[in-house]
Amino acid sequence: MFYTDGKLQYPVRVETPDPLFARALQQAIGGVEGEIRVAMQYFFQACGARGNPKFRDLLMNTAAEELGHIEMLATAVALNLEGAPLSVKESVAADPVGGAVLGGLNLKNLLSAGLSAMPVDSDGVPFDMSHIYASGNIAADMTANVMAESTGRVLAVRLYNMTNDPGMKDMLSFLIARDTMHQNQWMAAIEELGGASGAFPIPNSFPQEQENQEFNYSFLGFQADGSDPVPGRWSEGASIDGKGQFKPMRMTEALGEKPVLGPAKPNSGAQSEQM
Amino acid sequence: MFYTDGKLQYPVRVETPDPLFARALQQAIGGVEGEIRVAMQYFFQACGARGNPKFRDLLMNTAAEELGHIEMLATAVALNLEGAPLSVKESVAADPVGGAVLGGLNLKNLLSAGLSAMPVDSDGVPFDMSHIYASGNIAADMTANVMAESTGRVLAVRLYNMTNDPGMKDMLSFLIARDTMHQNQWMAAIEELGGASGAFPIPNSFPQEQENQEFNYSFLGFQADGSDPVPGRWSEGASIDGKGQFKPMRMTEALGEKPVLGPAKPNSGAQSEQM
Amino acid sequence: MFYTDGKLQYPVRVETPDPLFARALQQAIGGVEGEIRVAMQYFFQACGARGNPKFRDLLMNTAAEELGHIEMLATAVALNLEGAPLSVKESVAADPVGGAVLGGLNLKNLLSAGLSAMPVDSDGVPFDMSHIYASGNIAADMTANVMAESTGRVLAVRLYNMTNDPGMKDMLSFLIARDTMHQNQWMAAIEELGGASGAFPIPNSFPQEQENQEFNYSFLGFQADGSDPVPGRWSEGASIDGKGQFKPMRMTEALGEKPVLGPAKPNSGAQSEQM
Amino acid sequence: MFYTDGKLQYPVRVETPDPLFARALQQAIGGVEGEIRVAMQYFFQACGARGNPKFRDLLMNTAAEELGHIEMLATAVALNLEGAPLSVKESVAADPVGGAVLGGLNLKNLLSAGLSAMPVDSDGVPFDMSHIYASGNIAADMTANVMAESTGRVLAVRLYNMTNDPGMKDMLSFLIARDTMHQNQWMAAIEELGGASGAFPIPNSFPQEQENQEFNYSFLGFQADGSDPVPGRWSEGASIDGKGQFKPMRMTEALGEKPVLGPAKPNSGAQSEQM
Amino acid sequence: MFYTDGKLQYPVRVETPDPLFARALQQAIGGVEGEIRVAMQYFFQACGARGNPKFRDLLMNTAAEELGHIEMLATAVALNLEGAPLSVKESVAADPVGGAVLGGLNLKNLLSAGLSAMPVDSDGVPFDMSHIYASGNIAADMTANVMAESTGRVLAVRLYNMTNDPGMKDMLSFLIARDTMHQNQWMAAIEELGGASGAFPIPNSFPQEQENQEFNYSFLGFQADGSDPVPGRWSEGASIDGKGQFKPMRMTEALGEKPVLGPAKPNSGAQSEQM
Amino acid sequence: MFYTDGKLQYPVRVETPDPLFARALQQAIGGVEGEIRVAMQYFFQACGARGNPKFRDLLMNTAAEELGHIEMLATAVALNLEGAPLSVKESVAADPVGGAVLGGLNLKNLLSAGLSAMPVDSDGVPFDMSHIYASGNIAADMTANVMAESTGRVLAVRLYNMTNDPGMKDMLSFLIARDTMHQNQWMAAIEELGGASGAFPIPNSFPQEQENQEFNYSFLGFQADGSDPVPGRWSEGASIDGKGQFKPMRMTEALGEKPVLGPAKPNSGAQSEQM
Repeated sequence: MFYTDGKLQYPVRVETPDPLFARALQQAIGGVEGEIRVAMQYFFQACGARGNPKFRDLLMNTAAEELGHIEMLATAVALNLEGAPLSVKESVAADPVGGAVLGGLNLKNLLSAGLSAMPVDSDGVPFDMSHIYASGNIAADMTANVMAESTGRVLAVRLYNMTNDPGMKDMLSFLIARDTMHQNQWMAAIEELGGASGAFPIPNSFPQEQENQEFNYSFLGFQADGSDPVPGRWSEGASIDGKGQFKPMRMTEALGEKPVLGPAKPNSGAQSEQM
Repeated sequence: MFYTDGKLQYPVRVETPDPLFARALQQAIGGVEGEIRVAMQYFFQACGARGNPKFRDLLMNTAAEELGHIEMLATAVALNLEGAPLSVKESVAADPVGGAVLGGLNLKNLLSAGLSAMPVDSDGVPFDMSHIYASGNIAADMTANVMAESTGRVLAVRLYNMTNDPGMKDMLSFLIARDTMHQNQWMAAIEELGGASGAFPIPNSFPQEQENQEFNYSFLGFQADGSDPVPGRWSEGASIDGKGQFKPMRMTEALGEKPVLGPAKPNSGAQSEQM
Repeated sequence: MFYTDGKLQYPVRVETPDPLFARALQQAIGGVEGEIRVAMQYFFQACGARGNPKFRDLLMNTAAEELGHIEMLATAVALNLEGAPLSVKESVAADPVGGAVLGGLNLKNLLSAGLSAMPVDSDGVPFDMSHIYASGNIAADMTANVMAESTGRVLAVRLYNMTNDPGMKDMLSFLIARDTMHQNQWMAAIEELGGASGAFPIPNSFPQEQENQEFNYSFLGFQADGSDPVPGRWSEGASIDGKGQFKPMRMTEALGEKPVLGPAKPNSGAQSEQM
Repeated sequence: MFYTDGKLQYPVRVETPDPLFARALQQAIGGVEGEIRVAMQYFFQACGARGNPKFRDLLMNTAAEELGHIEMLATAVALNLEGAPLSVKESVAADPVGGAVLGGLNLKNLLSAGLSAMPVDSDGVPFDMSHIYASGNIAADMTANVMAESTGRVLAVRLYNMTNDPGMKDMLSFLIARDTMHQNQWMAAIEELGGASGAFPIPNSFPQEQENQEFNYSFLGFQADGSDPVPGRWSEGASIDGKGQFKPMRMTEALGEKPVLGPAKPNSGAQSEQM
Repeated sequence: MFYTDGKLQYPVRVETPDPLFARALQQAIGGVEGEIRVAMQYFFQACGARGNPKFRDLLMNTAAEELGHIEMLATAVALNLEGAPLSVKESVAADPVGGAVLGGLNLKNLLSAGLSAMPVDSDGVPFDMSHIYASGNIAADMTANVMAESTGRVLAVRLYNMTNDPGMKDMLSFLIARDTMHQNQWMAAIEELGGASGAFPIPNSFPQEQENQEFNYSFLGFQADGSDPVPGRWSEGASIDGKGQFKPMRMTEALGEKPVLGPAKPNSGAQSEQM
Repeated sequence: MFYTDGKLQYPVRVETPDPLFARALQQAIGGVEGEIRVAMQYFFQACGARGNPKFRDLLMNTAAEELGHIEMLATAVALNLEGAPLSVKESVAADPVGGAVLGGLNLKNLLSAGLSAMPVDSDGVPFDMSHIYASGNIAADMTANVMAESTGRVLAVRLYNMTNDPGMKDMLSFLIARDTMHQNQWMAAIEELGGASGAFPIPNSFPQEQENQEFNYSFLGFQADGSDPVPGRWSEGASIDGKGQFKPMRMTEALGEKPVLGPAKPNSGAQSEQM
């Protein structure tokens, strides 16, 4: 259950409204690397967490944090749209050389939302909840969270570098810091779950003797000229999970045959020639 | 550039066709944890890889492998649909107790594809390419790949446990093995990129002194009663990236204020009362 | 900013787990009439609310409530999936007559989420954030909210009627009650905004003399035989907004002409014959 | 069954083609507030209308009207794209100061449609039919229609304010007028269905004694500091449906407990630690 | 502009309601091969038709026909859902051996639509308007229409073969007949546009001397063993458009090099190692 | 199974990077007319091909080709983004008259992909795999392929006309040539399958005497004034499939009646008035 105080988790200040930057910020709200994604991902992972209850608590706690980040960013979008033009005439007035301002604005922020934020990305594509990874496997969930915070911090850094507005830079330096913490937080959770050698391969509950023993630590090459694939840490030495030895293997021909499906069934809507 | 021999990478054999299992296998083709996702993700990451060219090679090589996995699974779906009923009458004949067979089948595999595989998940939802993470940051991409292979192996294990067909179990034991390798492969790539202390926080090119120093290693609590959030590896000790010290911090009140957007602009389509 | 206590807003209890009902409950989470929709809708409306700040407060307060409803329903889904079969063999054991249980389950709840809830509807279609209506016009937003709670209560009633489980009925009687309140709450907000005659036509800031005076209160008929369209309250008497008189009008022919676009531009990729 | 005369319901005239305005108009075709939505919504509501047949007639009649509106807007888009540049060279020629014209254009209108309209919104996002609300409850459908026409008129007003073209303003003054009528029309239908006290809470067929009596007219507060939520018409007096009394109630703690899902099932793909 | 008479274009009769068949019929409404697709495709092609106006007339006329088909199918879905169970109890009563009826039903038809049709496919996936092909090239549009009617008739035949209901078979024999005509109708339009040799390659307005002359009629082989690709009409003789000679050509190595993108830009959010 | 050499099928060269053209090229990657579509469509058609195995070989061979085209285009996008601005300041520096460069860029290519290609269209809308037509009917599949290559070549021609860059024109002249071949290739396959008279109406396995004989070759008119629909090759003479005679027929009234669904079921969530 959630409570609110209606305030912003961290101050949001815009000195010079910039409609194009509003558009960029939308990516941090409704992009696949954005805050809706992490808020809802941690929320659903918490709801489905089985086993040690501390992971549920950890996840729901951070879900609450991320909800506040959406709120901050939505406010930042609206503030950056303050003063945005509502018409071509206004646009030209605001930018005597071009009239590009109205073009730079995401029109939907104006037409659908009246100069407010929307749950869409920087191209106006609505966020799609299939991006919420909550697998029922707590370690797999944590890898999804490390990934989410990694791409999230990459995005936040790009936004930080894009703007000159001191208020926006301040807000983003907070969000970048939180992404630093969250990358570490979820890696710490993986450590609690056994780290590389204890948690991997995920799921660790599957008896590895049932997996094909010839291919589970082989680095397969699919080079057309039959050469070895590019070597690296992945092609020699102990595997990262400590349970095998990496070795390269050239796949110069298929292990299976050309598949034959047999004729189409009568009445199946195929052509007569297929039956 | 790609070449093909039209054969299956590994043999695909179905002893007892099972339309319901065909439906489940669709998740491994067009689900967010499925093979289209990894094939296309590695492909696009390769295409955008900047810096050391070996990562492009590594990624494109494994993209080729994953394309072959889609082919195997698509064949497995079609073979499991052999003999599936085309009508209620057939369905009842096939299953005298219920007639559930036609209901268990994903109807679209019949109606849209004539008893063949489709690029959809087990509910018939088409795969959406927004799930292809190719961030332009090679380390973030690798975290996405560890995640993809983790959820992918969880799925493959669930499919393995769902079926009794020896042919299907054999195929899945190969795919599970490959997921084991790929989890390790991408973790090995992270190790080459510096591991936890060298690659993180991602992106490692952002000067950390520009991020908010108060919040970058603090484990924030958003407990309604003001208590500490659940303790763990994430709340004390050195951070996983080795660049800070974890510490818990209670967020008992907001750092910002209630946001004030000001009145709506005239002509902005708001109600008069908002202007 | 949000806080949590990790508890359920209202008790959630399942006496007899029912995987098919779990599937139905998914509609109340990720369906277009579901709780993600209202939680996020009120949230974004709050973030974009301009004018009297009490509407922001009202909206954000209820957004917090709805977040708790998602949590309740996600718990209910997981509890209904307790004991769901993981394989055909288990399924047959659980249901000796048919083996329909595994078929009735939404497979993705098993394959993608390990018998937990997902942000999808009862067909496994992920929720799409384009359903979040936050128009920047506070009265239009309220009509969207009345609609959301109306379809939401219709859904909750259908779920209530579908199940026999006392725990589920109890939970749903709470959610139905909240929908009753919320329908009233948003209608009360419309009343504060002037009611039918003050708030309508939305937006009330547009000078009505600029709209076409011949067609703004005419009930137009498009009957192929040129007859009057079906009469009712909408075809006579004062309009509901009190600003016009309803009158029927037969559209027996078009007011415009056949449109002529002119030839395609050279180099526009059209056929030569179109240029 | 439908008939056509191939003509425009109302004249569509563009004096000065404006590619950016073409882009904005796309929102009125394929946006969630657009004409495809209302046409298809009334169509499907009509097809599913049970009970008094006059609602089917009313809905199908207005569906026919809205189809004509799509046709008008599609023509307006194409006319606004007349003369749009096909190349950067042309773009620069058309706009010596910038070359912003090609950038302002929605490229897909050129690349996919050859300077014609598409069923997409102003960002090129295709319309998604999940926005067609046809609930099987005639009163809920009417609230959806009031909402659709409210957001639709807000959009039309924004478009009207954005353009200076007399032809476009004339067309929009017609469409705004129709939205005025349609808001009233659907409110009139609600009045026929009993108005606030007769139709609400929707569905009115559910015995209200079965809903939780403590929470069905309570305005719940989720304020973190335990204070009352913001008062208003919604917190005191008779409820709008006339069946209860509003009263505020502070939710200072959860009514339920922390949920416990129990351990994961063996073979469910979870980590060993969760079992 | 459109007119309606509210009647069905062709009689729709269901002797034995079948909820599973209702689900299958949804594919013909909201599937990619369904009637919404053709109705809207012909509509938008008409709206964007440049050149000889008869194609606009032809397309809009048939769009009107297809709207009537949606109406017929929506009625058929509702009639097949008459008597569908609303609860597990009812379901068991209706089908003493299993209780599969409620499972076979698409739950959303019940939960979201009250036993009526929806604009979704047989898996409940909403129709997405990106499937409306209206390219601005009249010949390309006609190929899209031949394709739409081909897949449409395949679907209708599968539905015809699935059911035993005489009323449904009669309705489908009408729809199949219409698909026969429409396949022919659009091929006839291609004939008017010059047929294979006059209209192809599409667009016929592009000067073919500007396309690469070595590859425009070569059947390229990408066989891993360097062998010729499978021969056929496509590998020898005059091309179908009459403008070239087919010839096979083995692609045994790439014409280009490994791409080199160069280092990532500073401040672009990449890892330091990529810069 | 697939192999790769990591090289480009055909050289990709950009003389003057153009971020706006990068955006346009995205349509050829992730647009519905793009290369992901054809690669995956041929791939899935191959996997489901029943009957003569040469079609499987033909399709999979060309799927391999198209994968190489995606690779070429992804490289072209990245090269066109070289030097794109990362901030407003850079943007203004690059384009002193406007600062439009950053606005012309698709922001997601920067924010999500670090100046690399994505599987999205020119508006940033992700490719949706529902566009993969693989019907199980080989002739229907071939019509889908002719259509795909027709719209694909239209797009490639528009891109060719949009740019002045010699490298890009060279690459596109190769891709246009391939589209010419592929249009012919799939038409040749239809010829092998019997051509217009042998393969049509698709599916040719359905006994045509079971389709309604009155309507299978009639050109139906839905003109509101009851006049004949526009005449053409489609209204007289032998049908293109050689199995009937075209004839015009005016649909001046419906063959069916107004549908009556009967009252809503009790407990179905409808209003009382509907029951």
